[in-house]
Amino acid sequence: MTTFSEIAPRLEDQAIEVPSWAYGNSGTRFKVFGSPGTPRTVEEKVADAATVHRFTGLAPLVSLHIPWDLVDDFGALRRYAEDLGIGLGTINSNTFQDDDYKLGALTHTDPRIRQKAIDHHFACIDVMHETGSRDLKIWLAEGTNYPGQGDIRGRQDRLAESLRTIYERLGEEQRLVLEYKFFEPAFYHTDVPDWGTSYAHVAALGERALVCLDTGHHAPGTNIEFIVAQLLRLGKLGSFDFNSRFYADDDLIVGAADPYQLFRILFEVIRGGGYGPGSQVAFMLDQCHNIEAKIPGQIRSVLNVQEMTARALLVDAEALRSAQEAGDVLAANEIFMDAFYTDVRADLAAWRESRGLPARPVQAYLGSGYQQQIEADRAGGTQAGWN
Amino acid sequence: MTTFSEIAPRLEDQAIEVPSWAYGNSGTRFKVFGSPGTPRTVEEKVADAATVHRFTGLAPLVSLHIPWDLVDDFGALRRYAEDLGIGLGTINSNTFQDDDYKLGALTHTDPRIRQKAIDHHFACIDVMHETGSRDLKIWLAEGTNYPGQGDIRGRQDRLAESLRTIYERLGEEQRLVLEYKFFEPAFYHTDVPDWGTSYAHVAALGERALVCLDTGHHAPGTNIEFIVAQLLRLGKLGSFDFNSRFYADDDLIVGAADPYQLFRILFEVIRGGGYGPGSQVAFMLDQCHNIEAKIPGQIRSVLNVQEMTARALLVDAEALRSAQEAGDVLAANEIFMDAFYTDVRADLAAWRESRGLPARPVQAYLGSGYQQQIEADRAGGTQAGWN
Amino acid sequence: MTTFSEIAPRLEDQAIEVPSWAYGNSGTRFKVFGSPGTPRTVEEKVADAATVHRFTGLAPLVSLHIPWDLVDDFGALRRYAEDLGIGLGTINSNTFQDDDYKLGALTHTDPRIRQKAIDHHFACIDVMHETGSRDLKIWLAEGTNYPGQGDIRGRQDRLAESLRTIYERLGEEQRLVLEYKFFEPAFYHTDVPDWGTSYAHVAALGERALVCLDTGHHAPGTNIEFIVAQLLRLGKLGSFDFNSRFYADDDLIVGAADPYQLFRILFEVIRGGGYGPGSQVAFMLDQCHNIEAKIPGQIRSVLNVQEMTARALLVDAEALRSAQEAGDVLAANEIFMDAFYTDVRADLAAWRESRGLPARPVQAYLGSGYQQQIEADRAGGTQAGWN
Amino acid sequence: MTTFSEIAPRLEDQAIEVPSWAYGNSGTRFKVFGSPGTPRTVEEKVADAATVHRFTGLAPLVSLHIPWDLVDDFGALRRYAEDLGIGLGTINSNTFQDDDYKLGALTHTDPRIRQKAIDHHFACIDVMHETGSRDLKIWLAEGTNYPGQGDIRGRQDRLAESLRTIYERLGEEQRLVLEYKFFEPAFYHTDVPDWGTSYAHVAALGERALVCLDTGHHAPGTNIEFIVAQLLRLGKLGSFDFNSRFYADDDLIVGAADPYQLFRILFEVIRGGGYGPGSQVAFMLDQCHNIEAKIPGQIRSVLNVQEMTARALLVDAEALRSAQEAGDVLAANEIFMDAFYTDVRADLAAWRESRGLPARPVQAYLGSGYQQQIEADRAGGTQAGWN
Repeated sequence: MTTFSEIAPRLEDQAIEVPSWAYGNSGTRFKVFGSPGTPRTVEEKVADAATVHRFTGLAPLVSLHIPWDLVDDFGALRRYAEDLGIGLGTINSNTFQDDDYKLGALTHTDPRIRQKAIDHHFACIDVMHETGSRDLKIWLAEGTNYPGQGDIRGRQDRLAESLRTIYERLGEEQRLVLEYKFFEPAFYHTDVPDWGTSYAHVAALGERALVCLDTGHHAPGTNIEFIVAQLLRLGKLGSFDFNSRFYADDDLIVGAADPYQLFRILFEVIRGGGYGPGSQVAFMLDQCHNIEAKIPGQIRSVLNVQEMTARALLVDAEALRSAQEAGDVLAANEIFMDAFYTDVRADLAAWRESRGLPARPVQAYLGSGYQQQIEADRAGGTQAGWN
Repeated sequence: MTTFSEIAPRLEDQAIEVPSWAYGNSGTRFKVFGSPGTPRTVEEKVADAATVHRFTGLAPLVSLHIPWDLVDDFGALRRYAEDLGIGLGTINSNTFQDDDYKLGALTHTDPRIRQKAIDHHFACIDVMHETGSRDLKIWLAEGTNYPGQGDIRGRQDRLAESLRTIYERLGEEQRLVLEYKFFEPAFYHTDVPDWGTSYAHVAALGERALVCLDTGHHAPGTNIEFIVAQLLRLGKLGSFDFNSRFYADDDLIVGAADPYQLFRILFEVIRGGGYGPGSQVAFMLDQCHNIEAKIPGQIRSVLNVQEMTARALLVDAEALRSAQEAGDVLAANEIFMDAFYTDVRADLAAWRESRGLPARPVQAYLGSGYQQQIEADRAGGTQAGWN
Repeated sequence: MTTFSEIAPRLEDQAIEVPSWAYGNSGTRFKVFGSPGTPRTVEEKVADAATVHRFTGLAPLVSLHIPWDLVDDFGALRRYAEDLGIGLGTINSNTFQDDDYKLGALTHTDPRIRQKAIDHHFACIDVMHETGSRDLKIWLAEGTNYPGQGDIRGRQDRLAESLRTIYERLGEEQRLVLEYKFFEPAFYHTDVPDWGTSYAHVAALGERALVCLDTGHHAPGTNIEFIVAQLLRLGKLGSFDFNSRFYADDDLIVGAADPYQLFRILFEVIRGGGYGPGSQVAFMLDQCHNIEAKIPGQIRSVLNVQEMTARALLVDAEALRSAQEAGDVLAANEIFMDAFYTDVRADLAAWRESRGLPARPVQAYLGSGYQQQIEADRAGGTQAGWN
Repeated sequence: MTTFSEIAPRLEDQAIEVPSWAYGNSGTRFKVFGSPGTPRTVEEKVADAATVHRFTGLAPLVSLHIPWDLVDDFGALRRYAEDLGIGLGTINSNTFQDDDYKLGALTHTDPRIRQKAIDHHFACIDVMHETGSRDLKIWLAEGTNYPGQGDIRGRQDRLAESLRTIYERLGEEQRLVLEYKFFEPAFYHTDVPDWGTSYAHVAALGERALVCLDTGHHAPGTNIEFIVAQLLRLGKLGSFDFNSRFYADDDLIVGAADPYQLFRILFEVIRGGGYGPGSQVAFMLDQCHNIEAKIPGQIRSVLNVQEMTARALLVDAEALRSAQEAGDVLAANEIFMDAFYTDVRADLAAWRESRGLPARPVQAYLGSGYQQQIEADRAGGTQAGWN
């Protein structure tokens, strides 16, 4: 069996982007609950993200969402973040909150609205030049609610054309990552519902177009680690949106619903070359802390990713391959589960301490006074949310 | 084969409650789109509901939601509705939008919060006395998002006690109907997730406690008509919330996603004595017209229920029973589908005309000028929504 | 609205392949029930298939499964079929019933077993040369039951290599169609679980490699018509395996579970150029008549496809496009559903009679004496099944 | 945090029934693979079951299936088992493999067939008197494949009557446990598809009628631990059929697909009084070892149950309740997951050794020579399977 000390050096490679919107309020269509200390400004969101990194060493980047995180001077925001020890990461576009987009944006039948949505992406690319971001992430909330409402095929053709126009605007070092989602907010058909659709589009665009895999965006029962393995094989896995779910796109804390699934996903990431130097895969969170505390929720999330990465690294690859080749089903499975069942928490605590990080980041955060401070400071104003 | 003229008299028995909130704005957690002419007041919602009845003859009642539809004088509202030709129907309680209910209401560990939720239901019962409503419908948005967050078992016990207290407050002619829902807004466990749970509770309460079946509130693949048959057999089907879905609780127009399923449901309703004189089953809609026009959406919905009721009535029950008893699988299925495939629309149009109703209600509505009128009249103010 | 007489000429284009194995016994892992008259030989299966065509005019080809349908002289079988008025269609390979394939065939770690599976496909290609079949259909029953059991990524790489070897053996006029399936018989991962995987493989192989879409092989809630539209757009839809399902791969009669879904699928087929002259799409059935009569079951199936094709052809494409472009959600949906709700059965009966076919093929079959004849003739021997 | 030594005494309470059929061959509708050493007789199955107990101390009973395990002298079989250190447990009836039951057994329209199925259960009760079994387990494979095929409601009524007749035949100390299943082998409707239906029937029967919960028999996404909590609350959880699944009723090794779910289930069992002295809940396995070795598969299964029971016992109930009552979502979840993440394997190994059991039962079995012996001894004859 592989030991923790053997895998410890590889833990240095872990870097997870946290989303700015996780620090704002979120909820369901029924209710958005607020909480004390919630940021009112982009800067406050960045400060919270930097806090997660300070306590974990795992979250050196914060993703932004446009227009939610629009500021006048992104250069200043970048310097502000860097002063706090983090960078600005992926830029997320938004084409689902303008009245014009009620029936579509990049797929709309009206060329004026398509162009408006394309222009929004051009503006995002401009932001990327200022923030130094590599990735433009496109999640399309588009689709239809009723059969016949739209022309499924025609929408694909228009989508391809819109994506082509956006892709061609990218700088040499920039990438387009196209997210897919099974359903919601559209309830009959979604224009990019599955990895196959996202793959077909990015394959047509070119090398710097890749797929974004959100772990909550699949049909019930989907084997997500298979998709990870396949996309890595095809050279097209660009990024992850980590979260977890029991039902639909629940956006719960990653690893909270099925830690063994997270382990299996990370095993395939490592197996397929998606982890460590040379990997092109961005690891992001995309969660909604509807009822739980937000900053500790994010800390818990990045720790969960780290814990399962450590367990996945512990799999004895050679023994596993031998058992697989011998056709020993039970032995292969046991080797695999041995790594999952190994409790790495104490080793990770020691590893953190050796790097000047708190052994128990959640508890350290709770004892730090940061939460009390922001609750006191952030009185008044409008708490940030999805707008 | 049964003919339309044979079943026509039974169509008189059809009466569908429409929900006041269907006329207000609704949407997803991502965006609520408004639309011109949306009501600003309860009275305007009632007026729209009455319009649906005027064009269809199918919707003689409007359900209210408390506190969304709170008015100072429910007696006056009742008279207003009656003047427009409809009545006030089921009263829906709401224990999911107050900050106190973030982690539970009727199930909360804190007795103060439980009492607050119970008191809200007492207030609803007071409203019912004024509106003349028979049914108090309880949809519990309660549950937890994370394993361990709550004590599943303890929550059931508290729920039972809270429901008992509410039930005992009901008047002699009033009923409690308990809705169940698979998930959302809670994403790990829901306190009343399935018909079995609702049934266990209402069976413990007494005769005037019944189950409400929302057609969108089931796990993927669930055979809903089986549940209908079972609840009718157990004497515990109190009401329907009709809508349709492809994925989760999509709240689409009833019959839009799977008309054959609607047919099968209505067949079991009729088979089990849930339709017509003597039935205790209330037929309600519960839909969200997120992107389509609201009043025509409601008209389409009640017409869909009527069309599928007519088809279900057309099933040749005697021939079907013979084929079933003969074990002739294909013949039985063909007799069943024959009724479904029969196009009753022309017959229904004639039937409507014979009653002074428009042959084509949607088109009649669109040509009536009502929509243009409300768009002109309802300028200013705040459009109604889920608050 | 489009009329039946306008679309009638296009009904001539319909041709559906029926599977030889539908006439043999099938069942679940719990029990395979036999029935009187079940074929004992390939010739008897072909005779039953020809009977379906004789009564419907819709099923001019029968698909064969190797080795279930192995005969010494396929040229003779071909002549036998042609004498009965049908041809031999797609050849289906089988790499799931040999003990060697317990843990994989085209993906196996052992090169000897991979070569054995490849050789089986070479043998199928030899058969195709004799039968004049165009398509080699590969359904891979491969996968694993337990995490860790196999190397998901390595299996893909071996699969790609095996498929390449088979593809290169095809004749100029022959095609390889690769079926995908969500799960079963493997219960953790399947090597070709979704259309994306099948597409990625056939895109890598070349022009004569295409995807086979079995309508029962998807995750719950999957929008199948979207996949149809996408594959047609990508030029990669090779064939259909039609059947229907409520839960998993139930293999019920096509159109029996959700006729509206079948309508939507056929609409996208037509919309995307997959129907009629010039289309490369093969329409096949793949069903299990576990409890119902087999020949009438197949007759019912091809009729269901025809009925829904007629309805789909009836959609008023121009009116639909106008409503879609106007953003009129309800009108577009109504135009779409109007066609679905139109009862074409009487028109189709007349159309059939005008071609010398029975107006009511199921009833004609039942009255023909064929069933009684085969029940009398096919005494003794071993009824055909999945072996 | 609770320590292992605190919970160790409670591990003595664990007793799991293993199914005789797990030692025979099983598979899918596509193929049943055999394996060397598979039992040919009931005695050989019992011997294998006893071997599982000998290596684990966890499996003191073997469940029998009638007629698969019919013997002339059940008294002798009982003595044979007792000599090997185990007892005979639950008796499982079978009404799905006789041609008469093709369209139903306890629900059939034909009274002769219903009586035949009832008589079979009477015969099972006779067996129970000889074997000393407490429980008659009824899994009904009944249902329909096509809408209209059967009268859903009438079938329920006949089912209730049949169950009543069987229940009344039970001895004073005997129980009836009614299993439910979402689908398969029926693919449209199943007569006992969910816990609610099973509950409604057993509640009507009386005190000694209880529900059997098979962990693989639910719709996708179903929260099984909720059902456990609910049935314990209602006093109606009679037994478990443990196994695991990714998709449908996959019948994989319990804990293999989602160990965290198994932990949550066992937590609710303990929470609700279903574990330990005084509990009426029988813990059984019901698995199919289609491709893996059978005896080690069963050993792995009972160990998985034990490991997750230990982890569930480790939950710090007091701290959990405090966090729940404080509304601290993250703290409560962390307390819960702490127990799950605790690696109890070394402690359990020591605990086993202290009882004279092998520290590592799977490895001990593999080194024991038992497998080689049965492979040598069990040459010839017909391997046991599902018939």
